[in-house]
Amino acid sequence: MTPTPDDRPPAPADLVITGCTVLVHDDHERIGFAEDAAIVVRDGTVESVTPAGDVQDRPAAERIDARGQVALPGLINCHTHSPMAALRGIAEDLPVAEWFNDRIWPIEANLTARDVELGARLACAEMIRGGVTCFADHYFSMDAVAAVVADSGLRAHLGQAYFSSQGTQGRERSLEFALRHRGAAGGRITTALAPHAPYTVHDADLAATAALAREHGLAVHIHAAENREQTDTSLARHGRTPIEVLEAAGLLDTDLLIAHGTGIVERDLPVLERAAGNVAVATAPRGYLKFAWPTTTPVRALRAIGVPVGLATDGAASNNSLDVWESMALTSLAQKSAEGDPRWLTSRQALHHATLQSARAVGLGERIGSIAPGRRADIVLVDLTGPHTQPVHDLAATLVHSARAADVRTTVVDGRVLMRDRELLTVDVPATVRELGRRLPALVDRGHGARIQEYDT
Amino acid sequence: MTPTPDDRPPAPADLVITGCTVLVHDDHERIGFAEDAAIVVRDGTVESVTPAGDVQDRPAAERIDARGQVALPGLINCHTHSPMAALRGIAEDLPVAEWFNDRIWPIEANLTARDVELGARLACAEMIRGGVTCFADHYFSMDAVAAVVADSGLRAHLGQAYFSSQGTQGRERSLEFALRHRGAAGGRITTALAPHAPYTVHDADLAATAALAREHGLAVHIHAAENREQTDTSLARHGRTPIEVLEAAGLLDTDLLIAHGTGIVERDLPVLERAAGNVAVATAPRGYLKFAWPTTTPVRALRAIGVPVGLATDGAASNNSLDVWESMALTSLAQKSAEGDPRWLTSRQALHHATLQSARAVGLGERIGSIAPGRRADIVLVDLTGPHTQPVHDLAATLVHSARAADVRTTVVDGRVLMRDRELLTVDVPATVRELGRRLPALVDRGHGARIQEYDT
Repeated sequence: MTPTPDDRPPAPADLVITGCTVLVHDDHERIGFAEDAAIVVRDGTVESVTPAGDVQDRPAAERIDARGQVALPGLINCHTHSPMAALRGIAEDLPVAEWFNDRIWPIEANLTARDVELGARLACAEMIRGGVTCFADHYFSMDAVAAVVADSGLRAHLGQAYFSSQGTQGRERSLEFALRHRGAAGGRITTALAPHAPYTVHDADLAATAALAREHGLAVHIHAAENREQTDTSLARHGRTPIEVLEAAGLLDTDLLIAHGTGIVERDLPVLERAAGNVAVATAPRGYLKFAWPTTTPVRALRAIGVPVGLATDGAASNNSLDVWESMALTSLAQKSAEGDPRWLTSRQALHHATLQSARAVGLGERIGSIAPGRRADIVLVDLTGPHTQPVHDLAATLVHSARAADVRTTVVDGRVLMRDRELLTVDVPATVRELGRRLPALVDRGHGARIQEYDT
Repeated sequence: MTPTPDDRPPAPADLVITGCTVLVHDDHERIGFAEDAAIVVRDGTVESVTPAGDVQDRPAAERIDARGQVALPGLINCHTHSPMAALRGIAEDLPVAEWFNDRIWPIEANLTARDVELGARLACAEMIRGGVTCFADHYFSMDAVAAVVADSGLRAHLGQAYFSSQGTQGRERSLEFALRHRGAAGGRITTALAPHAPYTVHDADLAATAALAREHGLAVHIHAAENREQTDTSLARHGRTPIEVLEAAGLLDTDLLIAHGTGIVERDLPVLERAAGNVAVATAPRGYLKFAWPTTTPVRALRAIGVPVGLATDGAASNNSLDVWESMALTSLAQKSAEGDPRWLTSRQALHHATLQSARAVGLGERIGSIAPGRRADIVLVDLTGPHTQPVHDLAATLVHSARAADVRTTVVDGRVLMRDRELLTVDVPATVRELGRRLPALVDRGHGARIQEYDT
């Protein structure tokens, strides 16, 4: 599989990972495992996946002995608000309207760019430690997040959020951000326009967003049909579901990432199926259980119409963690439960969501999501020698249902090692926590009585 | 809080843990946190919980500096089949009837005492690493499990399982086991009679079990109303719910631990409420989601009638792990979802289930489940300095929803350190995995066509 001619020695690799089992996809996207394999990385790209014996003499700037470990494509967090790591645990055990109106939106009125930066830095540390190599972020002060992404070495799909309550300025800033940062951090940053949701962004603003997306070739990242109540309210007020609102605005003609979609109903399915754009949904099942929403993302129905569903955590203020590994397991469990079918959403299906479907959801379906020649080298190494992951009768099940985020030992993005043997190499957690701690009293103060927006679906 | 007179120096402690935050219960069993505290342990018992400054000069055989950590009562796994760790991942994505009839019960026909011992040893390693200090086990070849418990240093509540298909021998062996091992391993082993379930043990056998329990002062551990289908079938065949079957047999007059109970229905509640014995239920929510059962344990209804609900994992062949920390989080999430109420089962309630209610469920409500003077020193130290557990706005929420089993650094049972800084001190995992690996082909062979029992509710 090495592409160099036989009569020349191969160019030195940047990184060779040896002796591991590699999760691979076959031509039909089925999950398989190549045993005792090696991964050769050059210029941030996977050059080859090959039997370990073939690369013993390959010169390499760096080698990782990964015996006893499994190499997976890095996990992708398809919808989060990374700076909200600063607000982890600030609003517990509340219905979503109170969560927004009484806690989160009043607190977010205090947010400074420095708070955003510190929260994002903490989030990046958590994600690198949990095997996440790429995240789709939807928040404010996104310049600060972009700077943290550049420093941390992660890959990210970033959008500056806006409400119609901000006037046209919000949309303009979102466009300006998306154009300025597109391709930044050596190509690791991609961007999207980020209208908040159909219940906070007017139809005219949504239509203008769709026009801008088409004009500039930008993706769009939005919350929609988050829960069934939003769908019911939208139908009562406008005669349209949130998905039909997106269609009427022209947003289904764009590359559209829809967060949550637990309120997607039967009549939305033909609408989504005829979408001209690449439409995907991000599912973050922990929050749906915690908010006691009556439904979860209809993954099976979406699969039937070819809509990819990526895994996500949402922000840590609702999800309490950015643990995509947990999202993978919970997606399997919540889907089996919701469908009343234990055979549905097997571990291999869960791994397909975690890899190729998540890559597609963030618009990177050709670049990441698989360990294969030509893909960017976003790789995590998982240690399965712990007692909780032994014995291995079914490796896919071991990965999805027995392994945990903390079993990730090494995280690589674009061929660069960001965590080695659990040691973070690009983020200083104690310094971040210390400074954030000093800022928290001012950040969480709600004495001003203001809020950035009203939750009223 | 040190009970020695002022004019004599206090006796040397066996263990002093300093500088941590300690989870404590007040007189109304409310969860609180004592900051910058110390725990003094002598003769396997908590002597005092005191400000850290008070014990600086206290002589102690061993001191643990636990700054940045939280001390919790060790988690209790209220229902498991520890040897099934050997079968982790062997029967995935199946309805429960196929899971039993086509996979588990044929494989269990091959089980030897050595397989049981190795599976239990692996399970004990996993539990110690996950902060579990006590488990209730219900399986076969329990002499082998008792030996592993003695070696590993864990506490356990053990019962030798039986079906009526074994004739009276099964019941007799269960009694003999319970009497012989009661109080073994320095008091760390307690025992129960362990009829499998109302659908595999006839009414006469259940009644005989109840009589033996009363005669010998033994507890009983049984599966009952595991799912709604069992309840429906029991009603159709016998005109009684499984809980009513237990009552008719006299088992509700004993100290009874009921596994699962997701099929407990409205008419069972007055039956349970009038029970003369100490009746408790163990909930293992992961498996209910994975088997796609339509209901979960009715924790809110059980709370209203004063029935304690302990946390559990069931066996690793269905649950894929023995991660009680995950059970704690999933109990909160599944309960909120089932009740449609995000305010229900707060993190403090989850911690109450994990501590005092779990201790009561395994009949040790006066000995463990709380870090307080006179309680056995079953303590785990949890590191909250990781990025995924910072910042801490609400410590109970951090523990339940952000922390993970892998954040447990130190596990102490009866004052003895079984894991220190993630290093297991009493179980050799590699040797166990190696020998188990050699035995697996014979263990999982189903070519014989036999099974130990038929699942037919």
